[in-house]
Amino acid sequence: MAERVVEEVSNKQVILRDYVSGFPKESDFEFKTSKIRLEAAQGSKSVVVKNLYLSCDPYMRACMRNLTGTYVPSFTPGSPIIGYGVARVIDSGHPNFKKGDLVWGMTGWEEYSLITEPETLFKIEDTDVPLSYYTGILGMPGMTAYGGFYEVGSPKEGEYVFVSAASGAIGQLVGQFAKLKNCYVVGSAGSKEKVDLLKNKFGFDEAFNYKEEQDLDKALKRCLPEGIDIYFENVGGKMLDAVLLNMRLHGRIPGCGMISQYNLEETEGVHNMFYLITKRVRMEGFMVFDYYPMYPKYLDMVLPLIRERKITYVEDIAEGLENAPKALIGLFSGHNIGKQVVLVARE
Amino acid sequence: MAERVVEEVSNKQVILRDYVSGFPKESDFEFKTSKIRLEAAQGSKSVVVKNLYLSCDPYMRACMRNLTGTYVPSFTPGSPIIGYGVARVIDSGHPNFKKGDLVWGMTGWEEYSLITEPETLFKIEDTDVPLSYYTGILGMPGMTAYGGFYEVGSPKEGEYVFVSAASGAIGQLVGQFAKLKNCYVVGSAGSKEKVDLLKNKFGFDEAFNYKEEQDLDKALKRCLPEGIDIYFENVGGKMLDAVLLNMRLHGRIPGCGMISQYNLEETEGVHNMFYLITKRVRMEGFMVFDYYPMYPKYLDMVLPLIRERKITYVEDIAEGLENAPKALIGLFSGHNIGKQVVLVARE
Repeated sequence: MAERVVEEVSNKQVILRDYVSGFPKESDFEFKTSKIRLEAAQGSKSVVVKNLYLSCDPYMRACMRNLTGTYVPSFTPGSPIIGYGVARVIDSGHPNFKKGDLVWGMTGWEEYSLITEPETLFKIEDTDVPLSYYTGILGMPGMTAYGGFYEVGSPKEGEYVFVSAASGAIGQLVGQFAKLKNCYVVGSAGSKEKVDLLKNKFGFDEAFNYKEEQDLDKALKRCLPEGIDIYFENVGGKMLDAVLLNMRLHGRIPGCGMISQYNLEETEGVHNMFYLITKRVRMEGFMVFDYYPMYPKYLDMVLPLIRERKITYVEDIAEGLENAPKALIGLFSGHNIGKQVVLVARE
Repeated sequence: MAERVVEEVSNKQVILRDYVSGFPKESDFEFKTSKIRLEAAQGSKSVVVKNLYLSCDPYMRACMRNLTGTYVPSFTPGSPIIGYGVARVIDSGHPNFKKGDLVWGMTGWEEYSLITEPETLFKIEDTDVPLSYYTGILGMPGMTAYGGFYEVGSPKEGEYVFVSAASGAIGQLVGQFAKLKNCYVVGSAGSKEKVDLLKNKFGFDEAFNYKEEQDLDKALKRCLPEGIDIYFENVGGKMLDAVLLNMRLHGRIPGCGMISQYNLEETEGVHNMFYLITKRVRMEGFMVFDYYPMYPKYLDMVLPLIRERKITYVEDIAEGLENAPKALIGLFSGHNIGKQVVLVARE
């Protein structure tokens, strides 16, 4: 039997130095170059992938803390951080995957990754759309917007919808889904440029820059004088408190994230909870994992919308793994415009 | 045609002097004696009733404020306050009611009331149970417990249920409904006597006195080490914050009331909202009005349970209209043990 020649290559990695409290900084990360054999160990069900795009997502802030029993596993200090990405299979011991396949799912922040439990990876079949979309509209954020808006939000035609962090990876989709449902849609974002994007690119009916509003309650009453049927919650804190004052009877609040709170050592208190009762509002937290079984159905809906340009998707692509930490922490100051992606390799 | 002789009688009334901020006091109320003609004006659809029992309910605190657009109408200073009660029809211009009928619904805090829109009254058909029950287990609190627990809470056999204000008009029923559903049921209340009642009379599996707990989170972890599937929310504030730390995946929080907050000028902030997301919890406020169409179905369920002594109901009956203000404000310090009722007349 001929000896199998396995290539060993250098592998640049993004390492979390230690758990982070407060606002994450670039110095919380470091780069390391290790070696990796581009081979799935014989008899294993692993795959080895070359990472092409990495996804920067707000939930990753929680992974930088030393938490147990929470909804996402903590990163391991000293090891490459883990996140969603798009990758090419280089070698596979798993029957579902073969060399050359494109996949999206959990991978490492490094050039090449050995994935020991590849069952959670999704195989990419449609490549007539940008590959990076599988970190966004065609990946986890897309499924989050889909599950949260349609399943948790239970939208009806003509309802009043408010989306916070509305130009982000998820918010821009929720707004567009709501417009497709003939809702009246208002978004908030943190800069003039983002507000313009909401109104002029994503078709929101109205939008405001929350950083320039003295009084969020007044801003909501100005943009949504009839109140809010669905609030797609991405930010928490003061915005949630203002929204509670403006909910309509039997309104719904799909709880997707609370990014305004992630870097606070003590979260802000929400004072207007009683309005949930007086307005009979349903606030429901959800996680994308529960909706992944609907992924094929989602693709059937969203791929034609993309191809027919009935939906658009704005990405903010940082080039090179060396810019990945900066891109990630930029999420928490709203530095990104649209979905934050890191391009690792063009292949 | 013989002239109709109409009796005019004296009518003692409980008057709200003025809107109340902070903790209500007996001196916020006064008594007045007016005259009332015991006749439904000819051609009107009014009824005149003799009030037998009046109901003291926490929502009435909101009516003591000068609020518009809220879920309940404000009382009118200088006029008798309005609330649920059980009454006997003395004269009726309405085809649904005739002299002698027993009814429950909204009436005045006075000996006799002229009810100009009697359509909202429920006729009492079953009188083999205590009449006062129609202010509690067979009235608004009963329907609140029923709608909130079964419809909003969506209980499953064997789930872990926590009820705050658990010995109150609604809580004692929720706990017993949950036991009938084979749930593990824990309640909190504000005295040793109430805790004993929960464990020994209502069949709760465990109970604690929240006033004696240094740390509500620890109390919940002690009584519910597996966490909480359903929290029936009656109190808000710190208890809600502690509960959020202990919810199980896909838990539900029917939001019925937040009595701990009603007398505060600024409500307490709730800090653990993010757990709604990580645990995919549904918190849903509700109002009893939405469930009144199910009242006949509820009676079919609960009347046999009462008759067969499979459910019990503890009332705290204050005798005489002159004790009504004290009974009402006692709700907010937890003075009552069980459902607070005022006996106005034995007939």
